[in-house]
Amino acid sequence: MIRAGIIGSTGYAGQELVRLLLMHKDVEIVWYGSHSYVDKSYSEVYGNMFNIVDAKCLDDNLDELSKKADVIFTATPQGYLAGVLNEDILSNSKVIDLSADFRLKNIDTYEKWYKIEHKAPQFIEEAVYGLCELNRESIKSARLIANPGCYTTTSILSLYPLVREHMIDVDSIIIDAKSGTSGAGRSAKVANLYCEVNESIKPYGVLTHRHTPEIAEQLGYAYKAAFIDANGTAELFTIGQKELSEGNPDSSALSLVFTPHLVPMNRGILATCYARLSDSFTYDDVRKAYDKYYKDEFFVRVLNKGVMPETRWVEGSNYFDVNFAVDEENERIVICGALDNVVKGAAGQAVQNMNILFGLPENEGLKMPPVFP
Amino acid sequence: MIRAGIIGSTGYAGQELVRLLLMHKDVEIVWYGSHSYVDKSYSEVYGNMFNIVDAKCLDDNLDELSKKADVIFTATPQGYLAGVLNEDILSNSKVIDLSADFRLKNIDTYEKWYKIEHKAPQFIEEAVYGLCELNRESIKSARLIANPGCYTTTSILSLYPLVREHMIDVDSIIIDAKSGTSGAGRSAKVANLYCEVNESIKPYGVLTHRHTPEIAEQLGYAYKAAFIDANGTAELFTIGQKELSEGNPDSSALSLVFTPHLVPMNRGILATCYARLSDSFTYDDVRKAYDKYYKDEFFVRVLNKGVMPETRWVEGSNYFDVNFAVDEENERIVICGALDNVVKGAAGQAVQNMNILFGLPENEGLKMPPVFP
Amino acid sequence: MIRAGIIGSTGYAGQELVRLLLMHKDVEIVWYGSHSYVDKSYSEVYGNMFNIVDAKCLDDNLDELSKKADVIFTATPQGYLAGVLNEDILSNSKVIDLSADFRLKNIDTYEKWYKIEHKAPQFIEEAVYGLCELNRESIKSARLIANPGCYTTTSILSLYPLVREHMIDVDSIIIDAKSGTSGAGRSAKVANLYCEVNESIKPYGVLTHRHTPEIAEQLGYAYKAAFIDANGTAELFTIGQKELSEGNPDSSALSLVFTPHLVPMNRGILATCYARLSDSFTYDDVRKAYDKYYKDEFFVRVLNKGVMPETRWVEGSNYFDVNFAVDEENERIVICGALDNVVKGAAGQAVQNMNILFGLPENEGLKMPPVFP
Amino acid sequence: MIRAGIIGSTGYAGQELVRLLLMHKDVEIVWYGSHSYVDKSYSEVYGNMFNIVDAKCLDDNLDELSKKADVIFTATPQGYLAGVLNEDILSNSKVIDLSADFRLKNIDTYEKWYKIEHKAPQFIEEAVYGLCELNRESIKSARLIANPGCYTTTSILSLYPLVREHMIDVDSIIIDAKSGTSGAGRSAKVANLYCEVNESIKPYGVLTHRHTPEIAEQLGYAYKAAFIDANGTAELFTIGQKELSEGNPDSSALSLVFTPHLVPMNRGILATCYARLSDSFTYDDVRKAYDKYYKDEFFVRVLNKGVMPETRWVEGSNYFDVNFAVDEENERIVICGALDNVVKGAAGQAVQNMNILFGLPENEGLKMPPVFP
Repeated sequence: MIRAGIIGSTGYAGQELVRLLLMHKDVEIVWYGSHSYVDKSYSEVYGNMFNIVDAKCLDDNLDELSKKADVIFTATPQGYLAGVLNEDILSNSKVIDLSADFRLKNIDTYEKWYKIEHKAPQFIEEAVYGLCELNRESIKSARLIANPGCYTTTSILSLYPLVREHMIDVDSIIIDAKSGTSGAGRSAKVANLYCEVNESIKPYGVLTHRHTPEIAEQLGYAYKAAFIDANGTAELFTIGQKELSEGNPDSSALSLVFTPHLVPMNRGILATCYARLSDSFTYDDVRKAYDKYYKDEFFVRVLNKGVMPETRWVEGSNYFDVNFAVDEENERIVICGALDNVVKGAAGQAVQNMNILFGLPENEGLKMPPVFP
Repeated sequence: MIRAGIIGSTGYAGQELVRLLLMHKDVEIVWYGSHSYVDKSYSEVYGNMFNIVDAKCLDDNLDELSKKADVIFTATPQGYLAGVLNEDILSNSKVIDLSADFRLKNIDTYEKWYKIEHKAPQFIEEAVYGLCELNRESIKSARLIANPGCYTTTSILSLYPLVREHMIDVDSIIIDAKSGTSGAGRSAKVANLYCEVNESIKPYGVLTHRHTPEIAEQLGYAYKAAFIDANGTAELFTIGQKELSEGNPDSSALSLVFTPHLVPMNRGILATCYARLSDSFTYDDVRKAYDKYYKDEFFVRVLNKGVMPETRWVEGSNYFDVNFAVDEENERIVICGALDNVVKGAAGQAVQNMNILFGLPENEGLKMPPVFP
Repeated sequence: MIRAGIIGSTGYAGQELVRLLLMHKDVEIVWYGSHSYVDKSYSEVYGNMFNIVDAKCLDDNLDELSKKADVIFTATPQGYLAGVLNEDILSNSKVIDLSADFRLKNIDTYEKWYKIEHKAPQFIEEAVYGLCELNRESIKSARLIANPGCYTTTSILSLYPLVREHMIDVDSIIIDAKSGTSGAGRSAKVANLYCEVNESIKPYGVLTHRHTPEIAEQLGYAYKAAFIDANGTAELFTIGQKELSEGNPDSSALSLVFTPHLVPMNRGILATCYARLSDSFTYDDVRKAYDKYYKDEFFVRVLNKGVMPETRWVEGSNYFDVNFAVDEENERIVICGALDNVVKGAAGQAVQNMNILFGLPENEGLKMPPVFP
Repeated sequence: MIRAGIIGSTGYAGQELVRLLLMHKDVEIVWYGSHSYVDKSYSEVYGNMFNIVDAKCLDDNLDELSKKADVIFTATPQGYLAGVLNEDILSNSKVIDLSADFRLKNIDTYEKWYKIEHKAPQFIEEAVYGLCELNRESIKSARLIANPGCYTTTSILSLYPLVREHMIDVDSIIIDAKSGTSGAGRSAKVANLYCEVNESIKPYGVLTHRHTPEIAEQLGYAYKAAFIDANGTAELFTIGQKELSEGNPDSSALSLVFTPHLVPMNRGILATCYARLSDSFTYDDVRKAYDKYYKDEFFVRVLNKGVMPETRWVEGSNYFDVNFAVDEENERIVICGALDNVVKGAAGQAVQNMNILFGLPENEGLKMPPVFP
C-alpha cells in the first residue's frame, strides 16, 4: 500500500483527492491536512465523508508527514510549498504539488505573475511538469511533480497536436475558456456566493490570468520540439519576431490570448480555441495529427467528426474530450476541449501522476465513467 | 415627492428596495445607507445600477436621515433599529423596519428567539405589524411599521382564511417552507457559496427557526378574532390546553411546526402547509373562505382549482399565489402559497406599506407582472 | 461473471445502471435495450460513455434476452413488464423491475393509481419488494424483485424505525418530499425544459401521487409486524378506524399525506417527515430505535445529533442519510431523509438487490463515496 | 393608445413582449396570437399572467390582425412572415419581425443559411434592420422592421465602434458568445431538458450558426461606411482579398468566426470578441471611439475601466454593457458585451423600435433597472 498524505485536504481539490484515493486499491491515506480545520473531524467539514473517513484534520507539517508518507499531495495556496520544501522531504517522499509553485521554469515569470518571491528556486529545475500525456517518461523518475493547472491542462491538450506539428500560426492562438465555480475554491467571498454566480456568466482576469504563462511556456516547448526535430537544433529557433536561444527556457513561450470565464455550474472546463491554419489543411489532416498523439491515450477522447465536447460528458471522471471544426475556405480552425476541473484538471491528474511515479497502471483507480446527469 | 432613505441599502432586500423605489413615480431616494461600503459608489457594489444610481453609500445615521427623509426603510441586522430609535426620529419620519425588531409583541419571546436584549421596548406597543392585507387600517396611521419576514408573509397568507374561520384544528398546523438563497443574505459564508448551495436541498433551523414565533403570534390573533366575533369577548378563549387571558399578547400564539429549507435558486418561497380540517369541508367550502378574504386583494391570487403555485410565476413581482387540495375522506388539507421573498417577502411589501402610509394607491409602483423565465 | 441485460437503458435510471454495472467487477452487460434508439450507438445517446461502451441499442425482447442473461433489469414505463413477463423468462433469469408493476400487492390499488390493467397478476404474489434493508432475507431466494420507487425508498427508510416500534401515531404522518429533476425522466416535455424548472420550486401530484400507496402499504406492514410481535397474531389489528383482517394485504396500509416537489437540481431527494409521537419520547429514545435497525447497515447513515441530511452529501452514491429533531414539549417529531434518487432510489438499489440475489457482498460495486461538489 | 398585436405570443420572446407592453403606458395589446395554444387562456400557458392577462390565444391571421392593430410583432419561426406578408398588411400596420426573414439583404445568403425559400423577396429592400442605435433614422419612417437576433445585437454593438473607425483588422474578428437557455426557445426537445443543460456548457453550431451572416453583413456596412467617409465612394472598396462593388449588398460582409455556447442560466448573452488592432492603440484611444458612438445612448453602458460586463447586471432590462482590455504590446484587443437576450436581444429592442416608429421617447416603457439577484 502506498501511504499518501494530503496537505490542504479541505479545499475542493483536496477533497476530490480524498474521494479518488479512497477508491484506489493501492493507497491508504495517512494524513488529512487542513490548516483551517485543525482537530475538526474531516466528515464534519465534508458531510459526504460521514462514516467513510474517520479522521481528524491535522495541521500542516511537511517534515513530519514526509516521514510517514510515500507520497505527499500539496493542494495549497501559491507559495506554501516553496516556503517549506527541503532536500530531506524530497528524499523521504515523492511530492505532487497542485499549486503553481513549480510549474514555471522561469523564476521571473513566476514572481511577476504571482507577485510573491519564490522561496525554493533550487528545486525548480528538477520539478517535472506533470501533464501525464506529454511528460510521462520524465515523470517516472521524478521526485517533485508540478501538477498542471485546470485551465492549463484543458488548453494544452486541446492545442498540443496542432502546435507540435506546426499546423497553426502560433501567434494566432486565442483560448476562450469557461469554468465551473469549484475552480474558484472554497473560501468565503461575496463574489462566489450562490446568488452572485447563479444566473450569470462573466469573464475575469482578462489578459492577466495566471494560467497564461503556464500555457504559453508548455506550448512553446511543443513548438520548439518540432523545430528541433526538423533542424537537429534549436539554435536558430524563433517565434514570431523573437529570437530565441536554448538557454532561456522562457524565451520559447508563445504569445497568446487567454480569457477565463465563470459559469454557473459546479464542475467542468470548456476551452474554445481559435487559430489560423499554417496551410490549407482539412478536417482529416488535422484529425491525423490528433490521432497521432492521442489514439493510445486512455484519458483523451477525440470525438467523432461533428460532435463537440460538452462538460456534462466528462463530469466526475479523468477524461479529456476534444474535437474541432475547420473553416477550409479561410484556413481557420476552432478547437474545443473539455474536462472536469477537479479531476483531470487537478486531483485526478495528481493520482495519474502518482500511478506513474509508483509504476502502477496509469489509469488505476481512475477508470470510473463520467457521472451523468 | 416622498423623500425616502434606506439604511442597509447594500443587502439583497435593500437593493431590491432601491430597484422598486427607482420605478416609483412619487418617490425620490435621498440616502443610500451602507455601513459596509461607506463612500463607495453604489453602482460599484451593484453593477446593475451603473448609470442609474449616481450616489455614494453613506454611513448609518438615523437621526440625521430622519431630518431629510419622509420615510426611512431599515433593512438592517436584528437589534440595529431598536438600538438607535428614539422619539425624535419617529416624529420626523415614518419608519418601515425590515428587521425583526418590532414584529413580536412579547419582549421575552423576542429575546429568547433572537438572543439579544431589546433596547427600545417602549416602541413595541405602537409598532404596527405591516402585513398589508390583514392590517391595512392600522397601518394608515402608524409611525413605525414592522415589515413581516419572508417566510412569515408566505405562511400567514397561506393559512389566514382557514384559521380566521376556524376551519382547521389549530394545533395540527405544519408549515414546510422552501426558500431561494437570496433569503440567506449577502454576507460571505462558506455555507452560501455557489458550490455548497447548488445541486442540493437542505432543511435548516428545524424546530428552531426565528420566524416560528412570528407566524404563531399572528395566526393566533386571527384565531382569537374569530372567537371574539362569536363570543363578544376573549375571556374564555383557549387554544389547545392553554387558557388565555386578553392581557398577554403572546398567550394566544398557536403551537405549530415550521421547517425552512434552502433551495438552489435566487428568489422565491414556497410554503406547503398541512392541517386537519375541523369539519368535513369540501374544496368549495374552503374556496369560499379564501375568496371572502382575498377576492379584492390586488396582490393575492387564489389560483384556479387544480393549479398549484410555483415560485417561477411570481418572480420579480409583489404577487402572492395560493391554492389548496382537500382530502375529504380523511379531513385533511394541503395549502400551498408562493411569493418572491425579496419583493412581497421584503422590499415590495415595504413599498406597499409606504403607499398605505402616504395615502397612495396601494399598488403604486408595484404593478409590474412577474418576470419569466 | 454475471451476465446482465438492461431493458430501458437509455432513460436516466437505465443509464445509471450502465454506469454502476460497468464499475462492478463481477458483471458484464450483454444487452443495452432501448426501444427509442434501436440500432443507435449507445455512446451517441450518452456521450459520457464514448470509448467506454461500444455497443448499439437493441430493441426490447425479454424472451430472447432471458436466454442470454443471468439477470435482467427493466427500467421501463409502467405496464411494460407485466405485459411481457412469463414463466419461461423467470426460470431463465432473475428479473429486477425498476417500474411499479409488481410493487403493490393489491391489484385494485395498482389499477386505481396507475390507471392501467395489470396483465400479469399471477406474479404479484411471488414478487419481492426490494427494499434491501427491510427485506434482505426474502430477496435472497426471489426470482422477481420489485425495485422500490425513489420517493418510496426515502420515505420508508426515514420512518421505518418509528413505525416499526409504534413510536408515532400512524395516522399523523405527513411526508413533504423534494426531488431533483432526473426523477421526471428523459422524455421531451415543455414542463421539464431547463427554463421551466430552473429558478423555481413547485409541488405536483398533491394528494394524488402514485408513490403514495406504495409508501402506505410498506409502512403498514411495519406497523402490523409490531402488532404481531406483541400479540402473536394480527387478528384484531386495526389502524385508526379501519378493522383489518390478515387476508387483505391492502387493508393494513396507513393513511398518510405525501407531497412531492420538483427542485431545480439534477439529482437527490429530501423527505421531510412529520408525525406526532405516541408518547413523550426524547431524541435519545428515538435514536435508540434508529440505531436498532440501522447501526449495521452499510448504506444507512444516521447522522450526528443536530446534523440534518442535505442531498449534496449523498450525490452519486448509494447512501441514505437520516436524522430527526424532537419537539418534546408538544410530542412532535420531524424526520429528514436524503438519498440520490437515481442511485439508492433506483439503479443503485437495483444493483444492491442483484448482489443479494447472487450471494455477493451487498455493497460490491457500490462503495464509492458521494461526489461533491 | 397604440393597438399592438403579437403573433407568436407564447414563445419566450413573445411572452416577454407581453410583459413589456403591459407595462407600457401608451400600448394596448389587442391580439395574443399562438398557433399552438389556440383558444387556451393565455394565463394557463404563462402562469405569471394570471389575473393580469384575461385573454384567450388566437390563431395566426395577419390579414385580420392588421385591420385591428397599429403595430404587429411577429415572434415566429423563420419563413412564417415571408409566407404571409403582403402590401395590404403593410399599409394597415407597422410590422416588427423578430424572426430572421428580413434581416439579410442578400436572398441567396438567406436561403443558404436558413435552407428555406424566401417567399416575399419584394419586401427585403424596404425592410429596415432594427438595430436602433445604428439605424435610428431609417427606422422612423419604415413600415417593416427586421428586429435583430440576440447574438447579433450583442456582437454588433460590441464591435461597431472599432469597425466603424477602422481600428481593427476586420479579417481577425473572433466572437465567442455564450447564451442563456431561453434563446433555445420553448419547444420540447431532449437537448433542452433541465438535466441536459444544467451543470454543463457546450458549443454548438460551430462555424455554421445562422447569426453569422447577419453579424458579418452589418459589420460590413460599418466598415464600408468608414471607407466611404474617407473616399467619398465605395467604388474601390475591398475587404481582405475580395473586391467589392456597391451593387452587391452581400459582398461587403466581413469574414469572421462566430461560436455560440449554451450556458446553464435562463437569460443573458455574453460575447467575448477578439481582434488585432490595426495600429498601436491604447485603452484610451479605443475608449474614445466607444464614447463617440455610445456616450448619448440610453441603453448602452460603457463600463468603467477595468470592469467587465457580467450578464447578471443586465438581466430583465434593455441595457447593453460593454468594455474591453487592450494588449498594447501585441496590438490585440478583447471586447466583452452583455445583454439580456429576451429584452435587448429580442422583445425589448422590438419595443424600442416601436417607440421610434411612433415618435415616442425611445426608452418609454423600457426604463426599468436590471433585476438582481
